[in-house]
Amino acid sequence: MIETPPLVDQYCHGVLRAELGLGTFEAQLIHSAGPPAAGTTFFDTQTGFAVRRWCPPLLGLEPHAAPARYLARRRELGPAESARRLLRGSEVAAYLVDTGLTGDLTAPKELALAADAEAFETVRLELLAEQAADTSGTVAAFLANLAEAVHHAAAGAAAFACATVPGREDGTVFDPDPPGPGEVRGAAGRWLAGRPRGGAVRDPVLLRHLLWSAVASGLPLQLHTGTGDPAALTGFVRATEGLGTRLVLLGGYPYHRHTARLAEAFPHVYADAGAGLGRTGARAAAVLAELLELAPFGKLLFSSGGGRLPELHAVGALVFREALARVLGGWVAEGSWSWRDADRVAAMVAAGNARRVYRLDRP
Amino acid sequence: MIETPPLVDQYCHGVLRAELGLGTFEAQLIHSAGPPAAGTTFFDTQTGFAVRRWCPPLLGLEPHAAPARYLARRRELGPAESARRLLRGSEVAAYLVDTGLTGDLTAPKELALAADAEAFETVRLELLAEQAADTSGTVAAFLANLAEAVHHAAAGAAAFACATVPGREDGTVFDPDPPGPGEVRGAAGRWLAGRPRGGAVRDPVLLRHLLWSAVASGLPLQLHTGTGDPAALTGFVRATEGLGTRLVLLGGYPYHRHTARLAEAFPHVYADAGAGLGRTGARAAAVLAELLELAPFGKLLFSSGGGRLPELHAVGALVFREALARVLGGWVAEGSWSWRDADRVAAMVAAGNARRVYRLDRP
Amino acid sequence: MIETPPLVDQYCHGVLRAELGLGTFEAQLIHSAGPPAAGTTFFDTQTGFAVRRWCPPLLGLEPHAAPARYLARRRELGPAESARRLLRGSEVAAYLVDTGLTGDLTAPKELALAADAEAFETVRLELLAEQAADTSGTVAAFLANLAEAVHHAAAGAAAFACATVPGREDGTVFDPDPPGPGEVRGAAGRWLAGRPRGGAVRDPVLLRHLLWSAVASGLPLQLHTGTGDPAALTGFVRATEGLGTRLVLLGGYPYHRHTARLAEAFPHVYADAGAGLGRTGARAAAVLAELLELAPFGKLLFSSGGGRLPELHAVGALVFREALARVLGGWVAEGSWSWRDADRVAAMVAAGNARRVYRLDRP
Repeated sequence: MIETPPLVDQYCHGVLRAELGLGTFEAQLIHSAGPPAAGTTFFDTQTGFAVRRWCPPLLGLEPHAAPARYLARRRELGPAESARRLLRGSEVAAYLVDTGLTGDLTAPKELALAADAEAFETVRLELLAEQAADTSGTVAAFLANLAEAVHHAAAGAAAFACATVPGREDGTVFDPDPPGPGEVRGAAGRWLAGRPRGGAVRDPVLLRHLLWSAVASGLPLQLHTGTGDPAALTGFVRATEGLGTRLVLLGGYPYHRHTARLAEAFPHVYADAGAGLGRTGARAAAVLAELLELAPFGKLLFSSGGGRLPELHAVGALVFREALARVLGGWVAEGSWSWRDADRVAAMVAAGNARRVYRLDRP
Repeated sequence: MIETPPLVDQYCHGVLRAELGLGTFEAQLIHSAGPPAAGTTFFDTQTGFAVRRWCPPLLGLEPHAAPARYLARRRELGPAESARRLLRGSEVAAYLVDTGLTGDLTAPKELALAADAEAFETVRLELLAEQAADTSGTVAAFLANLAEAVHHAAAGAAAFACATVPGREDGTVFDPDPPGPGEVRGAAGRWLAGRPRGGAVRDPVLLRHLLWSAVASGLPLQLHTGTGDPAALTGFVRATEGLGTRLVLLGGYPYHRHTARLAEAFPHVYADAGAGLGRTGARAAAVLAELLELAPFGKLLFSSGGGRLPELHAVGALVFREALARVLGGWVAEGSWSWRDADRVAAMVAAGNARRVYRLDRP
Repeated sequence: MIETPPLVDQYCHGVLRAELGLGTFEAQLIHSAGPPAAGTTFFDTQTGFAVRRWCPPLLGLEPHAAPARYLARRRELGPAESARRLLRGSEVAAYLVDTGLTGDLTAPKELALAADAEAFETVRLELLAEQAADTSGTVAAFLANLAEAVHHAAAGAAAFACATVPGREDGTVFDPDPPGPGEVRGAAGRWLAGRPRGGAVRDPVLLRHLLWSAVASGLPLQLHTGTGDPAALTGFVRATEGLGTRLVLLGGYPYHRHTARLAEAFPHVYADAGAGLGRTGARAAAVLAELLELAPFGKLLFSSGGGRLPELHAVGALVFREALARVLGGWVAEGSWSWRDADRVAAMVAAGNARRVYRLDRP
């Protein structure tokens, strides 16, 4: 058997503190623009089946328990104790927590305590801009406060994240270069003037300014690649090459092979090897194997992509661990790889690469 | 073993009434812009091999019989008896027949009789426009006749289909909104003025008008996604969300994972789980497994995509049934799914989803 | 077991004559814009693992030998003897050698001698233009010399190749038609005026002129499809249909299924079934199986894509042979294919298709 060390989950969010009914729980299982279609349920998905396979045993039930029975047991234990059992059942040593998701979620320290693990913060760039906008009266104050916030975050966080990379929704190529100061001031002025309190930043010039502020900080920058071909990011990748900042491409399924190719082609690009796995459940080994075609093994990093439900953190980790053992073990069994190499690669993807990229072990 | 009920084939065409020579038969096996290249034959394809595997036994020959031998046996039985044996050998309970394909093809009722199954009509939108154009002297008459034809079809058919969705050939994004009345009148006038009798509708404004007429009818609308990334349809999908009309995306291979993602993301979107399977033969289980990654299990519908040759209906159904049993059975064997869930999902994808979406069981 | 005849490697380059240190060797293993990221090595890739699996035994070491140990043994034998052993260990009967790669590489005849095989030349179109530019004083002389060079190459070479198909880097669609004479003269004048000695041709008009000159010659034309969806080539494919010239699409991973679809859709289009296999190592059978979904079996041609390191030629061939036997053998074992068909298809993809397309057996 492949030996995998305790994992580093390089991208996740906090979990909901509140108790959840069946409908609220179900709504978190997949990414949908609306409620389930008539006659269907989100439990009838790979994610739903994976939750029912892996999570009931952690709460003392049989695998594949029916949703209502599982939710009843979850209520019996309460959200805190359920989270504790689920997180501790998945052998994760450290979490990188993107704190930019809305809702009454546990902070990194609480997640760490519940999971008996370490937790590091990943700062969402868009949030820094929105917070600066909420507290600044002028364009000049906004830009100064934003610069200060980026600087401060860079000192304490493990990484920056950007969830609204320009073009990610429609796969259009965006101007890769940093916008000039006048351009930034103009865009900031227009945004601040029209913005309701708490309004999100969507302006491409401001988003590019955020990305380049993060690049300048030297902290690794996590980019959500969205649902299109990540080749749309190639211009930005080329423009940031050799500057010393690492780019970690998140998501990517069903374009994960393309993400892996970017990690092969550019020394400063890394690929996420997790978020698609929990979502695809029984197919996780197949998806992971595709990632392992082109991505250099030192460039792939596990994540659960979990958020709101601790079930998603647990399933992400358990599915990944099983998929990794199955894929690498298969290659060893057929003679393609040696045991020694397989163990070494398992340790890299599971934890070692993330520890190196995010410098988690620095004193 | 997974138990699969008799299938509902949610998208197919009639079969040719005429006797077929080797060349005519071969020409129907794959989608090619011309005859086979020198030194090659369309029988040397996954579809060709799948036909030779599954069909000869239904006509009393050994599997993998040579093409000439198979065709000789087919001629011996005659086209009607061959069709009867092929269709009855594939355990399909109901067909949705798109009657928009040209050629001397069996009508839905004839197909039903030959197959000892139910048949429902799917009305091709483009054909309604072309028929209205053939019988209308003015733009006003054309638009009135078209509206009447859509209304009439909506009362009797199971679904509408559109095979020439704007942008499907080049993956360009098309204007998702319904065109205004003046725009439609202008486009109709230009088309009618320049159109030879029987000429096909290609004008994007008229095609959008057809799509929105279908959406207004409330009948499910089947869209051929063509060969590009179906993300090009996202605008239209967004624009039709919440209106009560279901969109069923046909085809999609090799972008089937992307089609599945749209079915995950939008409550009113469904994905076809069939047309690519007969085409890929020995690889059908692999392709089906990819569809089952993101598509909610209540959103996938079997089809054969068969037309002209009853072999394609038969192969579509037999390959699908075997692939489904292998994929779901494998997940049960390794502990990822329970037997009960696998049987339930098999029944949904094979027939139940189509019966619900197209309301086949309404009195 | 599937019986595969000695291979025809339809696309490769010469091998480096010089002795190689660890760093130089490593740099050839993958396509990267720079050196390995800190803490990583290109040996930790599927290609690196495949080299360590297949090549050490050919030089008398155990499989999976450490890189340093392998390189030491390679130096002990010298580059010529190492190349001889590697090339002869992979059962390739004939190589088509693209001579357009820079570096101190063996010419086709030397490669043939080292490998005890036949070798044919593939002429890189861009190189003809660059050589004509280096030796011509005027636009008229350049165009005349280029025409002469194309004509001369067509008489002696097995194929033309183009590595910089317009749009291949960004997936943009390029004007598929041949440029007019005035357009070509203008583009040539601008290029020659601004060109440093040895400067590469990048002008889209000149590249189209090269492509159409090759099409006019009737020799098969190999096109590097780059990293985008090869659907961008559809216009050029349509424009060249029926002219008698065969197009062979090289590369394509991770869009190899799309390449296969083009080979299905157009009689004069062929698909490469090799270059992605050595790169993906333990995953080669999975990638090959995907190619075999839509590509007609008479339209797929093996290549190693190897260049500079004879290890890449050897790995390409050995990985392909194993993958082919596994994929086709699996289909026979499960009853999808007959033994006879599997052996026949193996012989076609391994060698027969290339012998026919490139007329290698003409006297």
